[in-house]
Amino acid sequence: MIYFDNSATTKPYKEVLDSFLTVSSEYFGNPSSLNALGGQAEKLLTKSREQVANLLSVKQTEILFTSGGTESNNLAIKGAAYIHKNKGRHLITTSIEHASVRQSFEQLEQDGFEVTYLPVDSTGRIQIEDLEKAIRKDTILISVMQVNNEVGTIQPIKEIGEYLKSHPNILFHVDAVQAVGKVQLSLHENRVDLCSFSAHKFHALKGTGVLYVREGVRLSPLLAGGGQERKLRSGTENVAGAVALSKALRMVLAEGKNGMERMKKIREILRNGLSELEEVQIHTPIENAAPHILNFSIKGIKPEVLIHALEEKEIYVSTTSACSSKKKSSSATLLAMGVPDELAESAIRISLSFNNTENEAIDALSAMKEASDHLRKVMK
Amino acid sequence: MIYFDNSATTKPYKEVLDSFLTVSSEYFGNPSSLNALGGQAEKLLTKSREQVANLLSVKQTEILFTSGGTESNNLAIKGAAYIHKNKGRHLITTSIEHASVRQSFEQLEQDGFEVTYLPVDSTGRIQIEDLEKAIRKDTILISVMQVNNEVGTIQPIKEIGEYLKSHPNILFHVDAVQAVGKVQLSLHENRVDLCSFSAHKFHALKGTGVLYVREGVRLSPLLAGGGQERKLRSGTENVAGAVALSKALRMVLAEGKNGMERMKKIREILRNGLSELEEVQIHTPIENAAPHILNFSIKGIKPEVLIHALEEKEIYVSTTSACSSKKKSSSATLLAMGVPDELAESAIRISLSFNNTENEAIDALSAMKEASDHLRKVMK
Repeated sequence: MIYFDNSATTKPYKEVLDSFLTVSSEYFGNPSSLNALGGQAEKLLTKSREQVANLLSVKQTEILFTSGGTESNNLAIKGAAYIHKNKGRHLITTSIEHASVRQSFEQLEQDGFEVTYLPVDSTGRIQIEDLEKAIRKDTILISVMQVNNEVGTIQPIKEIGEYLKSHPNILFHVDAVQAVGKVQLSLHENRVDLCSFSAHKFHALKGTGVLYVREGVRLSPLLAGGGQERKLRSGTENVAGAVALSKALRMVLAEGKNGMERMKKIREILRNGLSELEEVQIHTPIENAAPHILNFSIKGIKPEVLIHALEEKEIYVSTTSACSSKKKSSSATLLAMGVPDELAESAIRISLSFNNTENEAIDALSAMKEASDHLRKVMK
Repeated sequence: MIYFDNSATTKPYKEVLDSFLTVSSEYFGNPSSLNALGGQAEKLLTKSREQVANLLSVKQTEILFTSGGTESNNLAIKGAAYIHKNKGRHLITTSIEHASVRQSFEQLEQDGFEVTYLPVDSTGRIQIEDLEKAIRKDTILISVMQVNNEVGTIQPIKEIGEYLKSHPNILFHVDAVQAVGKVQLSLHENRVDLCSFSAHKFHALKGTGVLYVREGVRLSPLLAGGGQERKLRSGTENVAGAVALSKALRMVLAEGKNGMERMKKIREILRNGLSELEEVQIHTPIENAAPHILNFSIKGIKPEVLIHALEEKEIYVSTTSACSSKKKSSSATLLAMGVPDELAESAIRISLSFNNTENEAIDALSAMKEASDHLRKVMK
């Protein structure tokens, strides 16, 4: 099997599953229970929080465990907007965010907030000047993803953070779901106030995630109740999930620059090979792109047809973002980049993990060539 | 080990963990991905949803998977209130709900809604007449828990549902988190519109739950995004968690009436034994009580002291509700029942599962007797 759909979800590491299993069966107490089993569970939760904080070079109290990237994005954006609604009702984001960010802003628009959606250039990148121009006196929140989930474009987070140092009243949220382990980010240095992570994108488990909340940043909770996670996210803590998340994060970050370079090399093999195929257009830019994503269209070939042809050889790729793939509409990201509709609706995304190899790329290339040649013949 | 804190959380069944592990490692695709791995994951999710629906005698489309009881309660209450806010802004609940229900209503109060908190009698039960009197023309939602998490009192859900048949415009939400497997509930027959479940309370995993949403009932989503779970709960589905949940639900419901009777017998051994101890007051009523909870105070003995004394013999009980135990205030439920403050702040909760035995009850009783005698001597 060649698994090239890692931006949709990754295979959990064996060691991560082992930890999950051990915690679930042996340390199953409720961290809020006053008895010793509760105490053990609470200690494991604290240890996981410490580890995640250390790995991200932030404080323990700045780490909230959530049910995943979607919850982290919703909590960051709506939680920040609602608590500050009396200070202002203008929000800024980009036109190529993940559905969970875009829809959070759309909900806020329905509730009386005004949102500026920044355009992107042909590489999928926003311009700092556009951001500067969009800021108003009543702007309270800016949300920009670090790595686009469809094409892999890296946004100028550092520059935005630098610029926002002169706007201390505007909160800065970063959706880093696609960036973990692939593109570095220093949360404290880059003046990030809120940052979302999803565990199943880095070999931990679905249903778990993190929201980084900088010290002093207030949020209106989405999930009210027992007051867990500093009263910002109630609900019995998924201790085993948090332990699994912290372990996977450690393993993934340990891959470091070497791991990133390895993925980049595989991606370049794919890029070069695909460029040689007939009527292929590659949408992932050369500069400012994460190492693990390659997005392209083959003119005249429907993506689902290619996906199923590859599937027969146990090669798994996908269309655009998993979260939007069932809608069968054109990719909003590609349209925002100025890609024509016919290509924007036929995009294929290859997304890598540290476990992929150069040989897999070579095998996938010949399978794609064979499939596209065959499909072209059939259609003629 | 004698684990008597099952209302805080249960130990996951081995079979349930095995299923979780198999799905996580072998069927790890994203259900929204168009490729075959996504398709496999989607099939498993659908199968789990079907099984849960069948077990609850409802339709597949009425089952939403969530991150747990807290999310289910928040989504049901706030989701219903916000979508119907133009029809009315009056809500009704009881004075002894779980924190995730109470705090959801408190958030709504801050947002311009008006909430009536129904009183309870000395057994912890509301009176239907109070409910009838509380209903106004602008009432849009009533939320009543099926089984109280601290004392085990069963609310008259059937009667409420019957009465509400003449009020088709009022939504009826039931928090059934403590009821699954212990007290039956027919959702369709009893005119329940929304019902919350938490998987880790019935031997599945933390971080997973269900919200039953009757066909035709609309909600404003808390988590917006990719449109999963009928657009009511976005986020990559926790497929392995859903499979585990459906398996545990099947196993727990298979215990049936026999299982309930077994627990009841154990509880009665505890009740009788405790009644013989000095200065014990039992708060769990004789009638209309779930079989798995026994709540009591020993006058003059601080609950945390008794808990730690029992802990040394590997017997695990807890104070009030796990979610509120760290606050060290009196139990709101017991105060609402008219229990004096000194007793309400020293309550101990024993909560059983199907795995507990009569011998465990006998051993726990003698340990409690020994500990309380010893503590009394020390304090004299």
